[in-house]
Amino acid sequence: MNHLELFENIVRKKSYLCVGLDTEMEKIPSFLLKAKDPVFEFNKLIIEATSEFTVAYKPNVAFYECNGANGWKSLESTVTYIKKNYPDIFVIADAKRGDIGNTSKMYAKAFFENMPFDAVTVAPYMGEDSVTPFLSYSNKWVVLLALTSNRGADDFQYHNEDGIKLFERVLSVSNKWGSNDNLMYVVGATRAEMLKEIRKIVPDHFLLVPGVGAQGGSLAEVTKYGMNNKCGLLVNSSRGIIFADSTENFDKVAGEKAKEVQLEMEKYLSERNLI
Amino acid sequence: MNHLELFENIVRKKSYLCVGLDTEMEKIPSFLLKAKDPVFEFNKLIIEATSEFTVAYKPNVAFYECNGANGWKSLESTVTYIKKNYPDIFVIADAKRGDIGNTSKMYAKAFFENMPFDAVTVAPYMGEDSVTPFLSYSNKWVVLLALTSNRGADDFQYHNEDGIKLFERVLSVSNKWGSNDNLMYVVGATRAEMLKEIRKIVPDHFLLVPGVGAQGGSLAEVTKYGMNNKCGLLVNSSRGIIFADSTENFDKVAGEKAKEVQLEMEKYLSERNLI
Repeated sequence: MNHLELFENIVRKKSYLCVGLDTEMEKIPSFLLKAKDPVFEFNKLIIEATSEFTVAYKPNVAFYECNGANGWKSLESTVTYIKKNYPDIFVIADAKRGDIGNTSKMYAKAFFENMPFDAVTVAPYMGEDSVTPFLSYSNKWVVLLALTSNRGADDFQYHNEDGIKLFERVLSVSNKWGSNDNLMYVVGATRAEMLKEIRKIVPDHFLLVPGVGAQGGSLAEVTKYGMNNKCGLLVNSSRGIIFADSTENFDKVAGEKAKEVQLEMEKYLSERNLI
Repeated sequence: MNHLELFENIVRKKSYLCVGLDTEMEKIPSFLLKAKDPVFEFNKLIIEATSEFTVAYKPNVAFYECNGANGWKSLESTVTYIKKNYPDIFVIADAKRGDIGNTSKMYAKAFFENMPFDAVTVAPYMGEDSVTPFLSYSNKWVVLLALTSNRGADDFQYHNEDGIKLFERVLSVSNKWGSNDNLMYVVGATRAEMLKEIRKIVPDHFLLVPGVGAQGGSLAEVTKYGMNNKCGLLVNSSRGIIFADSTENFDKVAGEKAKEVQLEMEKYLSERNLI
């Protein structure tokens, strides 16, 4: 999927919502716990209920890894299920990987060959050769961390050399490694005001924006500063959708929550004359 | 294990060698491929042959993850086998993880609760709250990336604010998050000359040094600039030991290679009057 195809899906669905599958065993409604693979069962119902309103899913790999080999199976089942039933939906492994070249190659194999993910989140600290192995796959994407949504973002990401902050350097250096058809960036919604500056460096790249909802970011602000003429945004919501309800109705409520976000997005897309 | 216990093991074994278990299916001697779990079988034989000469093992998680759920099982079997048979050997999950707090907590659970790793490598880009969940476990360690051994280290790690390079800031800021009993740093052997400067910032912390051997770093140089009065070094070698031979004798040869390195380390420890 290239950036124009992603934009086409956004226009068709009137949505730039990414639903985060941070599926925590302790938060799964108890009636699902008797299933053979409760995490996958939960995800499947969430996906059925929300697919109409989203253009992307983002399983957070930590929440699978913490269940060991079985967790890895839940992850494989989830991405396989999405790509089989909804091939147009973009699926991001939120894994924050990154290591020396021969090791990143193995991580890329894990997510792009053994599983049908479209994209993987990568940490930039180790530089170019830690990222390029992921970019060598056609039709696959790197989502590189730039400015994250957490408090700790202040520790290093603003480190400033001659007026250039580290996250700005990450953007300007790394965007030469790929194109806006295989590279996007994580920019936290809690830093929406920074999106204006970020758009000066990467006007055409898609941005994956976590932090709306539970982390306090505002969709209106993110859209105001971050949207470009191909939308250029995937806005993620996890807990606010998938754990909005813990009864047997959880999937229905998740669908309603996703629809609420989609309707707000439809308004913004319409205001910008993109739909 | 605290830093004094780690030092005691170094003194007893006259070695500060860490053997990297970057076990690549394609490089395993063919006669092992008929085993139920060839990766674990290979590791077991490598461990038997090298345990006398090493104080640490470092499975590189990417090489397991790229085999999916089965790979995860090989990883679990490997660390469980080491801690059961050689409880004094320090085992590091080389995973380069790091995410917002609630996610890092899940990664910590994966490596410290579900598996008996002593330490996990963590990337610093997302700052304090991405690291502290790993530090909340007693007797467990974070090995934080500071200056890595790859070419890409030049891209961001030298980003310089008022004379302070990013990796130096990582060292000085992060060493307040933990102590030299639960925090060590990755410093690549290919940057041995930088160890002198690094020791000014973290004189007492252990440093995990990859890049000796296949990546071209020198053990003599690393020791010269990096060793402190509690040794303070774990020097990793992976391919140079575990894939030194591909015949039925591979484990014997790996043992010989590990012994060679151990003998060189014994010389350096003796020269510093640490043994």
